[in-house]
Amino acid sequence: MYFIGMDLGGTDLKLGLIDQTGTIRYKQVYPTLNTDDPHRLADSFADCIERVVAASGLDWREVAGLGIGAPGLMRSLDGELDFVTNLPALSNFGLGAAMRQRLGLPVTVDNDVNAMVLAEFLHGAAKGCRNVVGLTLGTGVGGGLIIDGRLYRGASFCAGELGHISIESNGLLCNCGNYGCLERYVNRDGIVGRFEALYVHKGQASSIARYLDHGAITPLAIAAAASAGDQLARFVLFETGRFLGTALSGIINILNPEMVVVGGGIANAGELILEPARQEIARRAYPLPARTARLVQAGFLNDAGIVGAAALAEAALAEAAL
Amino acid sequence: MYFIGMDLGGTDLKLGLIDQTGTIRYKQVYPTLNTDDPHRLADSFADCIERVVAASGLDWREVAGLGIGAPGLMRSLDGELDFVTNLPALSNFGLGAAMRQRLGLPVTVDNDVNAMVLAEFLHGAAKGCRNVVGLTLGTGVGGGLIIDGRLYRGASFCAGELGHISIESNGLLCNCGNYGCLERYVNRDGIVGRFEALYVHKGQASSIARYLDHGAITPLAIAAAASAGDQLARFVLFETGRFLGTALSGIINILNPEMVVVGGGIANAGELILEPARQEIARRAYPLPARTARLVQAGFLNDAGIVGAAALAEAALAEAAL
Repeated sequence: MYFIGMDLGGTDLKLGLIDQTGTIRYKQVYPTLNTDDPHRLADSFADCIERVVAASGLDWREVAGLGIGAPGLMRSLDGELDFVTNLPALSNFGLGAAMRQRLGLPVTVDNDVNAMVLAEFLHGAAKGCRNVVGLTLGTGVGGGLIIDGRLYRGASFCAGELGHISIESNGLLCNCGNYGCLERYVNRDGIVGRFEALYVHKGQASSIARYLDHGAITPLAIAAAASAGDQLARFVLFETGRFLGTALSGIINILNPEMVVVGGGIANAGELILEPARQEIARRAYPLPARTARLVQAGFLNDAGIVGAAALAEAALAEAAL
Repeated sequence: MYFIGMDLGGTDLKLGLIDQTGTIRYKQVYPTLNTDDPHRLADSFADCIERVVAASGLDWREVAGLGIGAPGLMRSLDGELDFVTNLPALSNFGLGAAMRQRLGLPVTVDNDVNAMVLAEFLHGAAKGCRNVVGLTLGTGVGGGLIIDGRLYRGASFCAGELGHISIESNGLLCNCGNYGCLERYVNRDGIVGRFEALYVHKGQASSIARYLDHGAITPLAIAAAASAGDQLARFVLFETGRFLGTALSGIINILNPEMVVVGGGIANAGELILEPARQEIARRAYPLPARTARLVQAGFLNDAGIVGAAALAEAALAEAAL
């Protein structure tokens, strides 16, 4: 039995056919159609899905459902998306129902970070855990929660905004209007901004020029320099880990999870961020929950989107069977 | 059907017989026996319970279970207490099993803050909600979580330590070893300390002398002065509410609850703290979860301990019936 995972972004539509062990049988990336017409968009998604299933060599009868993960806000009543970042055509459209009608398959729609956490819980680093905190570090900082073995969505389907807890009540102003949000310290701009403040403005030495990412200082470039021993890059990632650990200490004291899984592009920096975060958690969180919560890198990094989306469909089928 | 609620502290043993609507039929307070022998302690608890049931006029067949709430840390395997604050004799003793043996009743033991939150969920301010954050403000700041209609205990039975999230990563050192914990700003010492800094050390005017609590400046005295219009007392409680709202904003962004219930002695200050907390939440939390989460005073203030303990027994019976 296979699930179609659809990772929907403003630029790319990523599709995959994933089995019940989380293994990808076939995957493909298409450009997202640029249109204001949600019906034409849904038609194009259905087309791409038809092509992917045909190319995979699977029979439609082997496809048990479609999961859609998208950056956006869930609507509480019907599990549709209120709002999709960079795809205004789909806001309040009812994408799940539209795809259900076109494909004749069960369709589950959710936030892409919830999807990522579910993938880690079902098939990745957090397999076998019951209570999991998932975080994605990238342009933004997202989060999702597995509580007692189920994705926890909250009273109005927006639980898990882990990037928006304040670690400094009078800290940096965040786009969300709050001050000192974790996101401002550990997202792409936070990391690059701190590096540049020291490198460009303070003139501190670094070998970063050798590791630029398409000519730019990015978290990837900083991680590459740090891996090669660059002290300034290591310091900036160490600080990033400490900020992360500070926020996670509170989260761990509140939720007492077995595992905290960190994904998103910046998680590629791995132990350079995770190890200082662990030290900070050991210093700040209560001893018992600190010992209980293992902090690990996500198992699915590049394919998290499609595996996560397929996991949404898989989990929905399992819930329906209960 | 009735449940015995036993609120166990180092000084007082509070007992009550509570029905399935959360109504107290009979209650009594006894001094906690001062002994190092846990068996003698358990005997004395059983004695007091026998006396309370006899005095209530109930038949033992009408008593469906005993719930015990105590300040302490739960053990994960068998739901006993690892550690009871101010009652070292009971640490690692197996109080639940001992009471079960003596009384022949189903016994449920839990942390007293979990008990309080459960009482609010079953019979108090949060009745009918599915996702509830409960906080107690007193000498310490405790917390408990109802997630999807059940008390959430976490991976090692210590979830809900809401007092120990840092709102200032380099803030005041907390007893727990972390810096800037909410508890340091909104507990008894935090409130009284800020009042005294302004009143005693800065010499700011206040009518507090008219409202002293057994001769002392306490949160109760400050609340009484504030209610009578004292500007300094009002300011200190306003600030307390802002600290509370800052921490709750993060908690609301993470958990997206329908309700946040605030109990404990300091909750008697009511709107003087809750209203500035609401304003802070409106400024800091995401709009949707901020609108969703109602912040209210606990329904059970003085009897929270026994009603909560009885609620533990009631919830355990309901779970067993599933």
